[in-house]
Amino acid sequence: MLDNGLRGIAIFAYETGRLKRLARDGFENAIVANPESVSEHSHRVGILAYIIAILEGAPNPERAATLGVFHDVPECRLGDNNAVTRNYVKTADPQKVIRDQTERLPGSVAESIRALVDEHESCKGPDATLEARCSHDADKLDCLLQAREYESAGNRNMQVFIDTMLNSLLTPTGKELGQAALEVDPATWWLEFSARIGSPGLS
Amino acid sequence: MLDNGLRGIAIFAYETGRLKRLARDGFENAIVANPESVSEHSHRVGILAYIIAILEGAPNPERAATLGVFHDVPECRLGDNNAVTRNYVKTADPQKVIRDQTERLPGSVAESIRALVDEHESCKGPDATLEARCSHDADKLDCLLQAREYESAGNRNMQVFIDTMLNSLLTPTGKELGQAALEVDPATWWLEFSARIGSPGLS
Amino acid sequence: MLDNGLRGIAIFAYETGRLKRLARDGFENAIVANPESVSEHSHRVGILAYIIAILEGAPNPERAATLGVFHDVPECRLGDNNAVTRNYVKTADPQKVIRDQTERLPGSVAESIRALVDEHESCKGPDATLEARCSHDADKLDCLLQAREYESAGNRNMQVFIDTMLNSLLTPTGKELGQAALEVDPATWWLEFSARIGSPGLS
Amino acid sequence: MLDNGLRGIAIFAYETGRLKRLARDGFENAIVANPESVSEHSHRVGILAYIIAILEGAPNPERAATLGVFHDVPECRLGDNNAVTRNYVKTADPQKVIRDQTERLPGSVAESIRALVDEHESCKGPDATLEARCSHDADKLDCLLQAREYESAGNRNMQVFIDTMLNSLLTPTGKELGQAALEVDPATWWLEFSARIGSPGLS
Amino acid sequence: MLDNGLRGIAIFAYETGRLKRLARDGFENAIVANPESVSEHSHRVGILAYIIAILEGAPNPERAATLGVFHDVPECRLGDNNAVTRNYVKTADPQKVIRDQTERLPGSVAESIRALVDEHESCKGPDATLEARCSHDADKLDCLLQAREYESAGNRNMQVFIDTMLNSLLTPTGKELGQAALEVDPATWWLEFSARIGSPGLS
Amino acid sequence: MLDNGLRGIAIFAYETGRLKRLARDGFENAIVANPESVSEHSHRVGILAYIIAILEGAPNPERAATLGVFHDVPECRLGDNNAVTRNYVKTADPQKVIRDQTERLPGSVAESIRALVDEHESCKGPDATLEARCSHDADKLDCLLQAREYESAGNRNMQVFIDTMLNSLLTPTGKELGQAALEVDPATWWLEFSARIGSPGLS
Repeated sequence: MLDNGLRGIAIFAYETGRLKRLARDGFENAIVANPESVSEHSHRVGILAYIIAILEGAPNPERAATLGVFHDVPECRLGDNNAVTRNYVKTADPQKVIRDQTERLPGSVAESIRALVDEHESCKGPDATLEARCSHDADKLDCLLQAREYESAGNRNMQVFIDTMLNSLLTPTGKELGQAALEVDPATWWLEFSARIGSPGLS
Repeated sequence: MLDNGLRGIAIFAYETGRLKRLARDGFENAIVANPESVSEHSHRVGILAYIIAILEGAPNPERAATLGVFHDVPECRLGDNNAVTRNYVKTADPQKVIRDQTERLPGSVAESIRALVDEHESCKGPDATLEARCSHDADKLDCLLQAREYESAGNRNMQVFIDTMLNSLLTPTGKELGQAALEVDPATWWLEFSARIGSPGLS
Repeated sequence: MLDNGLRGIAIFAYETGRLKRLARDGFENAIVANPESVSEHSHRVGILAYIIAILEGAPNPERAATLGVFHDVPECRLGDNNAVTRNYVKTADPQKVIRDQTERLPGSVAESIRALVDEHESCKGPDATLEARCSHDADKLDCLLQAREYESAGNRNMQVFIDTMLNSLLTPTGKELGQAALEVDPATWWLEFSARIGSPGLS
Repeated sequence: MLDNGLRGIAIFAYETGRLKRLARDGFENAIVANPESVSEHSHRVGILAYIIAILEGAPNPERAATLGVFHDVPECRLGDNNAVTRNYVKTADPQKVIRDQTERLPGSVAESIRALVDEHESCKGPDATLEARCSHDADKLDCLLQAREYESAGNRNMQVFIDTMLNSLLTPTGKELGQAALEVDPATWWLEFSARIGSPGLS
Repeated sequence: MLDNGLRGIAIFAYETGRLKRLARDGFENAIVANPESVSEHSHRVGILAYIIAILEGAPNPERAATLGVFHDVPECRLGDNNAVTRNYVKTADPQKVIRDQTERLPGSVAESIRALVDEHESCKGPDATLEARCSHDADKLDCLLQAREYESAGNRNMQVFIDTMLNSLLTPTGKELGQAALEVDPATWWLEFSARIGSPGLS
Repeated sequence: MLDNGLRGIAIFAYETGRLKRLARDGFENAIVANPESVSEHSHRVGILAYIIAILEGAPNPERAATLGVFHDVPECRLGDNNAVTRNYVKTADPQKVIRDQTERLPGSVAESIRALVDEHESCKGPDATLEARCSHDADKLDCLLQAREYESAGNRNMQVFIDTMLNSLLTPTGKELGQAALEVDPATWWLEFSARIGSPGLS
C-alpha cells in the first residue's frame, strides 16, 4: 500500500514536470518568443508570496509560499489559458482537477495538497486567508515583473499586462510592491552591483 | 524607509528572475539541448519537499517547501556549477551570498530569507532539521526525475545522474521515492489517463 | 466600408499569426522539447489533404487543401488542447469561434471562411463531404508523420500517437498512406537522394 | 504499383516536413533570433491567398490557397535564399525541382503538384492567372505582417522588409491590404477583444 | 582613409556575426532540432586544425587554425548548403565571394583574408599546402564529432554523417583521429573526470 | 602510445564541444533570451584577432587568431563567469585548468596549447606579446559588436556592455575599431549590399 502510494507520488511528480514544458500563453499573444514556463512563473510566485506574507504580518508566510508553489498544478491538465481563451473555454474548477491529480496519493498527502489549491482559489472570497491573498498578489506581481523584464528585452506590448496586474492587487503590500516594481529597473540588481565593483563586463 | 524597503524587495525580486534564465549546467555536459532552468528545477523541489516532509512526519511541511523554493537563490550570483566545475571553482558560501542579496530588504524579510538558506545548507550536519533533510532529498529527486524525463526524450547519458542522485538521498521516504521513480515511466500520468479516456491523441 | 473591411482582414491575418507561436501541446506531454507550432502542422495538413483528395477522386482537391489550412484557425482563441486537457476543458465549438473571429471581415470573406470550418468539423457526420474526410485524415496523418520524425530524433514516447492516429483514419487512401508512413523512414527522401549522388555530408 | 505510389507519397510527405525545420533566412540577416520556419510562412500565405482571391473576384479562391501552400515546397531542396544570397547562388528553377521531388508520386498527383508550382511561378508573366497573382501577393503580405510582428517584439531592422514587400504587391486588394496592415497594430486582435471583455491578463 | 578602412572592418566583422545565426543545415535534414551554428562549427575546426597540423609536422600549425576559422566566412553570403541542396544550387566560388566580402577592407587585410580562403579551397589539389589539408580534415572531423554528440543526445540518423566524414579524411593523422573519435564516447571527458572526483551530479 | 595520444585528442576535442553548449552568461543577466555560446564568441574573436594583428604590424597574425580560438577553452571546466559572479567565485587560473585539460594529449600538442593559454593570459603584463594584446582586444570587441547586435534586435540593457568594452581596449587599432563599431550599424553589410542590388526582401 505504501509502495503503491509512493508509486502514486512518483506519477504525480512526473505530472508536475509538465509545467516545465507549458508556456505562459498570454505572453505568446503578445509576441514574446519562447515565453517562460508555468514552472518558472510558479517559482517566483512562491518567493514573492513568502515576502508579502511577512510584510502583511500573516501568521504563516511559509504557507503563503506553498500556496504559490502549488496554485498552478491543475494547469497540467487545464493548460494555461489566457484572457482571450477564457472566453471560449470553460475549464473545470482547479479544486476539481487537483482531486483527480491526487487520487493515487497517500491520503494525508492528497488532503494536504487539495487544501492548498482550495485555499488559494478562495483568495477573493470573504473567508480568504491572508496567506491566500498574499499568494494571489504574488501571482499577479510575478506577471508584472516578467512583463517589465520582457519590455527591457525589447517587447513593445507589455503595458497592458503591467496595468492589468497593478489593478488586480489585493493587499496593501502587494500594491506598494507593484509601484516599487515600476520604479525599479529590472537591471538594477546587477548594474548597481557591477558599478560598485567597477566592471559590468564579460570575461 | 518602508518605501526604500519595498524598492529593495523589487530589486531582489528582479534578481531572482535571473534563475529563469540560468541553465542547469550539469545537463549541458551531458548534451541536453536547452536544459531546464534553475527556476524550473526549484519549483518541483518545492513540491517534492512538501510531500516528503508530510510522509516523514516533519512538523512543518510548508517550511520544507519554502526551503526548496529558496535554496538556489544564491545561484543568481554563483551560477550553477556542476561536478566538473566545482573542482576548479571555489564559490562563496551560499549563506554569505544570501546575506549580500538581502542587504536592501526590510530586516524581518532579510532575516527570514537568510534563515531559510542557512537551514537548507545545514541539511547534512548533525543539527539538521527534518525539513532541511526533506528539502535536500527533494533537490536530488527532482534531478533524478528530470534525468529520467530527458532519457525518455532520447538522451543516452542520464544513467550517471540517476545513480548519483539515488545514492545521495538521506531520508527513508526519499530513498523509497527514488526507487518508485525508477519503476514509474515519466509518461505514466498521461498514458494511463488517456487509456482510461480512450484517446491519447492530438486534436 | 471597404477600408474598414480591409482593416478587419489585417486584424484577422495578425490573429492567425498566433498559430505560429502556439505549440502542439500533446507533444509537450510526451517530453518533446519545443514541439512544432500549429501553423507548421496546418501547413502539411494542407499538403496531405490535397494529395489524399486526388487519390480518393474527390471533386475538389483544392477545397480539401483549403479545409486543412483553415481547420485550426479557431485555436487562436481555443488554444491547442490535448487528450488529457479535453477532459477538463469544455471548448466552444470551432464553428462558433470562427464566427467571432471573422466578424469584422467583409461578408463574402467571412461567409467563405465560416463555411470551411463548418465543413471540416462535419467530417465524421453522415453528410460529410469527401473533401472534409480527406482534410480529417490529413490532420491525423501529419500527426503520425510528425511522431515518426520525433521518434527518429530520439523521443521514446511516440508509439501511442502513431497507433491512435492510425486507428482514426477514415478514407481508404488515408489508411493506406498511414501504413506506408510506417514502412518508410523519415530520412528516406534525403538518404536515397544522397546515396544516388554519392555524398550525404555537410560542406 | 499503387503501394509503390503510396510509399512515394509518404517519402514526399516526409520531405515536406523539412520546411518545418527551415528558417526564413532573410530574417536571420536582420538579427531575428530563431525566426519562423518556411512552413509557418507558407501556412499564412495559404490563408491570405484565399482571402485576396475572394476580394479580387478570382474564379477559384481555393486554388489560390493551394498555390500558396505548395509554392515553397521546392525549398526543401533549394534552401531559403535571401536577397544577399541570391546574388551568389544560382538555384535551379522551382519548376525543375518540383519535378524531381514528385518523381515517385502517382502520375495524377505528380502532375497536379507540378502544375501548382508552375502556375505560382508564372505569377509575374503575361499569362499569369489571377489566382497566381493572389498567391504572389499573399507571399509578400505574410512577410510584411511578420516583419511588423517582429518589430512589435523589439527588432529594429524591419522597415526595409516592410517597404520592399509593399512595393512588390501586384493586385489592388494586395496593395490595399498592405496599407491596412501598416495601420493596424499586430496586437489589435487580442487587445480589442480583451478590452471588450475587461481583462487582458494571464490567469 | 584609415578611418574608412576601419569602418570597412567593422562592417566586415558584423557580417561574420551572421555565422552565429546560420544553422548547419545538413543536420536539419536529419531532424536535429536547432542544430549548431556555422560559427560553432568553425570554432572547433580551428582547434582541430591546429592539433592535426602539429601531429602532421606542418610548418605552421597556427596557419592551419586560421584557415579553419576563416574557411566558412563566404557562407555569410552563400548560406550553408547541404548535400541535397548542392545538386540544385550552383554557388559562386568561395574565392570569389571572399573578394566581395573584403572589398572595403584595408589592402593588407583584404589580401591576407583572401589568401586564407584560397589556400583552404585548394586543399584537394596537387599544390595543396599541408596546412590546408589539415584544415580540410578538421572540417570533416568536427562534423563527425558533432554527429556522435547528436547521436548521444538521441538522434538516430547520424551514421551516414559519420561514415561520410570518415571516408573524406585526407591526412594520416586525420584518419587516425577519426577512428579514435569512434572509440571514445563523447561523454568520456566529464564521466572519467567525475568518476575520479567521486560525483558526477548537479549541485 | 600514439593510439593513446589520439584517444586523448578525441576526448579533448569532445570536451571543447562543451563550449557550443555554454551560454555567455553576462548577457543572461541583461535578459537576452538564449544568448550566444562561448564557441560562437570565440570564433569571431579569432577573426578579429587576426585582423587587428595585421593592422598593428604584429609579427604573427595567425598566432593572434589561434590565441583567440583557444583562450576560452578553460571555460569548459570553469564555466562562463560574469562580472557579478566573479565577486563570489574564485576560479582556478586558466593556465592551471588547461594543464589538466591537456594531460592526456601527446606532449607536443599539450605544450603548444598550454603555451597559447599562457600567452593570452599574460596579455596585460609587461611582457605581453603584441599577439596577446590583439587577442585581448578581439575578445572585448566581439563582446561590443554582439552587444550592438542584441541592441539592434531590441534589447535595452546593452549600453553598459558597450561602454565597458570600449574602455578596456589596449591597442591603438582596437580602440579605433571600437569607435568604428559604434558608428557602423550592424545591418550595414546586408542593407548596403541589398540597396546596391535593388531588393532586400525574402524570396
